[in-house]
Amino acid sequence: MAETQPPNQPPEDNKPGDAGPTKSALKKAAKAAEKEKKAAEKAAKAQELAQQKAEADVDFAAGLYGPLPLNQSQSRTRIERDRISLLPSKIGEKVLLRARVQTSRAQGTKMVFLNLRQRTDSVQALLTVTPEKVSKQMVKWAAGLADESIVLIEGIAVKTHEPIKSASVSDVEIHIEKIHLIAGLDSRLPFTVDGANRPETEGDSAEVQYKRVLLETRLNNRIIDLRTQTNQAVFTMQSAIGDLFREYLSSHGFMEIHSPKLQGAATESGASVFKVNYFKGSAFLAQSPQLAKQMAIAADFERVYEIGPVFRAEDSNTHRHMTEFIGLDLEMAIEEHYHEVMEMLDGMLKNIFSGLRSKYRKEIDVVQKQFPADDFKWREGPEGTLVLSFKEAVDILVEDGVPREDLDDFSTENEKRLGRLIKAKYDTDYYIIDKFPMALRPFYTMPDPEDPTLSNSYDFFMRGEEILSGAQRIHEPQLLSEKMRSKGVDPDSMKPYVDAFRMGCPPHGGGGIGLERVLMLFLKLNNIRRASLFPRDPKRLEP
Amino acid sequence: MAETQPPNQPPEDNKPGDAGPTKSALKKAAKAAEKEKKAAEKAAKAQELAQQKAEADVDFAAGLYGPLPLNQSQSRTRIERDRISLLPSKIGEKVLLRARVQTSRAQGTKMVFLNLRQRTDSVQALLTVTPEKVSKQMVKWAAGLADESIVLIEGIAVKTHEPIKSASVSDVEIHIEKIHLIAGLDSRLPFTVDGANRPETEGDSAEVQYKRVLLETRLNNRIIDLRTQTNQAVFTMQSAIGDLFREYLSSHGFMEIHSPKLQGAATESGASVFKVNYFKGSAFLAQSPQLAKQMAIAADFERVYEIGPVFRAEDSNTHRHMTEFIGLDLEMAIEEHYHEVMEMLDGMLKNIFSGLRSKYRKEIDVVQKQFPADDFKWREGPEGTLVLSFKEAVDILVEDGVPREDLDDFSTENEKRLGRLIKAKYDTDYYIIDKFPMALRPFYTMPDPEDPTLSNSYDFFMRGEEILSGAQRIHEPQLLSEKMRSKGVDPDSMKPYVDAFRMGCPPHGGGGIGLERVLMLFLKLNNIRRASLFPRDPKRLEP
Repeated sequence: MAETQPPNQPPEDNKPGDAGPTKSALKKAAKAAEKEKKAAEKAAKAQELAQQKAEADVDFAAGLYGPLPLNQSQSRTRIERDRISLLPSKIGEKVLLRARVQTSRAQGTKMVFLNLRQRTDSVQALLTVTPEKVSKQMVKWAAGLADESIVLIEGIAVKTHEPIKSASVSDVEIHIEKIHLIAGLDSRLPFTVDGANRPETEGDSAEVQYKRVLLETRLNNRIIDLRTQTNQAVFTMQSAIGDLFREYLSSHGFMEIHSPKLQGAATESGASVFKVNYFKGSAFLAQSPQLAKQMAIAADFERVYEIGPVFRAEDSNTHRHMTEFIGLDLEMAIEEHYHEVMEMLDGMLKNIFSGLRSKYRKEIDVVQKQFPADDFKWREGPEGTLVLSFKEAVDILVEDGVPREDLDDFSTENEKRLGRLIKAKYDTDYYIIDKFPMALRPFYTMPDPEDPTLSNSYDFFMRGEEILSGAQRIHEPQLLSEKMRSKGVDPDSMKPYVDAFRMGCPPHGGGGIGLERVLMLFLKLNNIRRASLFPRDPKRLEP
Repeated sequence: MAETQPPNQPPEDNKPGDAGPTKSALKKAAKAAEKEKKAAEKAAKAQELAQQKAEADVDFAAGLYGPLPLNQSQSRTRIERDRISLLPSKIGEKVLLRARVQTSRAQGTKMVFLNLRQRTDSVQALLTVTPEKVSKQMVKWAAGLADESIVLIEGIAVKTHEPIKSASVSDVEIHIEKIHLIAGLDSRLPFTVDGANRPETEGDSAEVQYKRVLLETRLNNRIIDLRTQTNQAVFTMQSAIGDLFREYLSSHGFMEIHSPKLQGAATESGASVFKVNYFKGSAFLAQSPQLAKQMAIAADFERVYEIGPVFRAEDSNTHRHMTEFIGLDLEMAIEEHYHEVMEMLDGMLKNIFSGLRSKYRKEIDVVQKQFPADDFKWREGPEGTLVLSFKEAVDILVEDGVPREDLDDFSTENEKRLGRLIKAKYDTDYYIIDKFPMALRPFYTMPDPEDPTLSNSYDFFMRGEEILSGAQRIHEPQLLSEKMRSKGVDPDSMKPYVDAFRMGCPPHGGGGIGLERVLMLFLKLNNIRRASLFPRDPKRLEP
């Protein structure tokens, strides 16, 4: 990748030293006059810290700059490192921080500008030749640091006169006094992190598109790709979705379970499973925790959830399939009606949506800079989430011109079309389709009591793509065996599962959510691989 | 299994109806006189509820007793079901609850006692022939319910005059007015849940031991075994350990990651991996998230944790090994010293211990009834957790008579012996051994800067068994490659991993914990399989 973005321009009126420690010291002294005792304590503490820092310098540095020895935990000063995001509260103070050099740019031989990065945050740092403090050699050395080097910087946090556009913390810059290399590069970067963070707008010109880092290149060099501010935000949000999922369910009486991924038999009908060499025999990788979580209900756990890997041996290379993904699964006993489960799932998802919006606005904004999208929308009023029956959904598509005979099941294309129609009509990116035909659902799905061609099952959608599938399950062993046989599954091949229901099992239902799909569709990332740390598909097992 | 425990004896002075609704209604009326408006509202609400309940009866029952139709979500009354644990606050009120029949015992033809169970809670319920209310047929039908049937009970919660020892809620009993069967049994129970919940004390007589349900029998019929109050408590605590792990780490700036279990190469040296048929090629199951979590650090995530399955193809059938278990893994960048990580792990584990003790006392007590044990002990004073160097630990064993030449590494036996010696000397079940010899650790372990035969690595122990292994890792690619070769691993065979460090990686360290080991050792369950929902070992892939 060629690096075409112009290097960071320092604001012209940005004179280093304007807001130095002297001013701050005077201010402190003035305050001290007012509150003597407090100030004295503070000063003592500051002195102690300065003392510590001075000792630290002796330990970690051979001088003001240069590479540090390999960190093998030789010594310990216990001085806290600063975070870039918190620098605005440190104006006028000495700061010490470990950060990446995203870019460096020398101005003549006397000055170098570094763009320093920590996760989604960046700040400008400046090193200027200063008699008896900063030598020409020091500036030259700093200017020669490779992009993506990790440095330890000591300097003063100074308020800038004009915002620095290239940095996320735009009103502070660091005037460097010491700079040391913690880890350098032993290889050439496949692309710059700056370049990989560029906006990807639909309808970009061919030239702009050409400069994009291709997804394939990104995934081959995922470590570098993950360092972009976008990806730091994406995976912070992935972590948040898990937290919000658990938070909601814990507060509704659910407990977490962990079910085995190694199975004795290739279970459930339809999807293909991976075969594992298991000592002298074979095992199979679970294609979902479906059977285990139902067995947990038969074992009286009442309400359970699981977050874990799910394996699908489907040779499919679409934008929304992976061979391994994270399932957010839940199962619960029901008292009267499977809508108890549907409503639990709905409440939980809305808790995720609103939690992301309220607590992760910064991350959403970071991602939208690279992937422009309208904010995800759901119905928040008293009318509640839009729930259509399968039949009603079919009618909407037929009304829009899709032949009814094509709608025994929804193709991906028709699903998306339905999403667009619903958005236009109901102004929501999120809805539920209930009452799927029995023929489309797995053997363990409970039929509708009125119409045996229908089932007590539902799918949930985000932006026209399915993110959740669920249903009431059959808890009665005779009916279960019958349905298994009618779908071509021998009940004896899944004896431990069927036996669980022979010992008495309450009516129950649940659902399974693809974590990466929720993340992809909430942020409109366009490819599921962008929502997986190290994605796996039929062609990719590394890194 | 023969059922030898005596049936529940109803207290003789326990007269049904003593604390009926009339008394309560009078009380309410007295209160209403004081606070008119509030009471009026309350009464209206109560009436509405009574109305709903009356309607519900019409819906779900053909009468006062009998089997309910298969719950296929025909109707919905939205009446809340009661929980046994909350019955003491419902004295004198009508209650409605779904529960298991743990045991039933008829007294003549006019009375039947049911022991009803929900998870760790149980209560006595009573059905008596009453003119125009409860018929002889109804009592007979209830007396014929199989153990482990699931019933829906309506009745009055009545305070007992003497505690009912056979029930966990001993001061309340339910006087049944309606009883319906939700799910019956279609098979014979392999053992009773009552029997499976009996104390297993060391030194029990041969006769008592003979009556125990063997672990093998339990695991073959895990669904029934899991219903014991002991197991309900064990897995509530398993869920709690995950919560406490996440809670501590989230509050210390960690985020959750999910790394792929399917790997392109058989990674890490030493342990064996399972091979998977992956389309036309092969994949391998990750034996830990070690490589991925280190790569996440190289990708700037700073502090990460993962909770997920870990696979070990070791043909080992000990009390503490499984082929699949849950790893609680973390990795973090360090600023100066690997003890930053060791202290983080220590703080996190102590948070788990104290969280379990303070919030799960009830569950601990339930488990200790079956598995008598002293409470788990750790040092909570200002002296902090006991940390011994490997050398100091060896000296303790030598002093106790173990030949020094046997102590190049610790055998399981010597580990346990050390645990006993430390308990006697320091009164703690929990300690850390630091500074393991380099020869005992994997290639990615950072050597000690002073003595290259030692390493910056540690193990954590509970009751003399290892639960956590961790270290500072090598973040420098040259040294890493060198150490790989010295351990017989070709760096090219793990190129994506080594490459991650070539692009600049901060110094870092971490550790991996076995969830089931922490649970087993905290509760002294004696076998790791008891701490796993559906355990997997070389001989077990089902249920």
